[in-house]
Amino acid sequence: MTGNHKLLFATSNIGKFEEAVNVLEEYGLAIEMVRIKRFEVQSDDLVEIAKISALFALEEVKNPVIVEDAGLFIEALNLFPGPYSSYVYKTIGLDGILKLMENVKNRRAYFMSAIAYCWSESEVKIFEGRVDGTITHEKRGERGFGFDPIFCPREGDGRTFAEMSTEEKSMISHRGKSFRKLATWLK
Amino acid sequence: MTGNHKLLFATSNIGKFEEAVNVLEEYGLAIEMVRIKRFEVQSDDLVEIAKISALFALEEVKNPVIVEDAGLFIEALNLFPGPYSSYVYKTIGLDGILKLMENVKNRRAYFMSAIAYCWSESEVKIFEGRVDGTITHEKRGERGFGFDPIFCPREGDGRTFAEMSTEEKSMISHRGKSFRKLATWLK
Repeated sequence: MTGNHKLLFATSNIGKFEEAVNVLEEYGLAIEMVRIKRFEVQSDDLVEIAKISALFALEEVKNPVIVEDAGLFIEALNLFPGPYSSYVYKTIGLDGILKLMENVKNRRAYFMSAIAYCWSESEVKIFEGRVDGTITHEKRGERGFGFDPIFCPREGDGRTFAEMSTEEKSMISHRGKSFRKLATWLK
Repeated sequence: MTGNHKLLFATSNIGKFEEAVNVLEEYGLAIEMVRIKRFEVQSDDLVEIAKISALFALEEVKNPVIVEDAGLFIEALNLFPGPYSSYVYKTIGLDGILKLMENVKNRRAYFMSAIAYCWSESEVKIFEGRVDGTITHEKRGERGFGFDPIFCPREGDGRTFAEMSTEEKSMISHRGKSFRKLATWLK
């Protein structure tokens, strides 16, 4: 379905792009970053956000394109920050989340990733990935981006995402999962 | 510019609607509530959100229509929760904001209201209102809605918005100001 078109990833987040490259390489797939003004709807539904963003991106780049939307969902905070994770990261940040989680026993949380691949106005395909884990009590690690330093995946060995290499993180992360689904489908 | 059309307010928030009625009554203007699925963009800019929402609302109701977007901007939290106030209210709520503000000295904050009045695809008029104040240390009052119980306007007498009647609140509130600008313009 990609034909001879190069796969474009509309994002301005280098960390996301590197993770995508890392996963798609395993499948012999190349991807290119394209920066466009994202048009994001306010919605509690990542899939809806990704879908509409992909349609806008297609209109902009006139080429098959993917967008990815991701969020951190914390059980004790009614799934806050969810689809607004990047805004929350920019404003109250990691310290804000840790403060909200002070004296909170239930530390369960998950990351979700939704990729929308759009190659015509009526054709959008969605790939989702999820990773379960817990919110730590302090920041640990310098790698990754966003909320990585306070998220400890359940399938891991106790390290946060920010204490792992891109390869290690991609093995178990929400984004690794959604991009592997995309790659398998493209093949 | 309204001609013989009835002024429609696209909102599902009864509290907002009541405040609008209250202000517009003073000017002899009637307004009607219309519930539609709002299409909100993710943006840090209330005016942009209101503008785009109004265009979508016009398409839906085929009649001149207003939408209003409002937010609480807290200085010490890098203007969080801003345009995402209603999502933040639904998730971490008043207690979440008070927790984030624990031991924070600078309690300055403001509410912003942006009304977009749209009567054709190319004609949108914006009316803004702002009120400055502080975040209280505890919830006070049962009236109003949203963050009213923790916001104390500077122009007031020490009571929070939730301790005032709709009339008292509208005299000094962000929404009172933006709706009075709309009313003056309509007249």
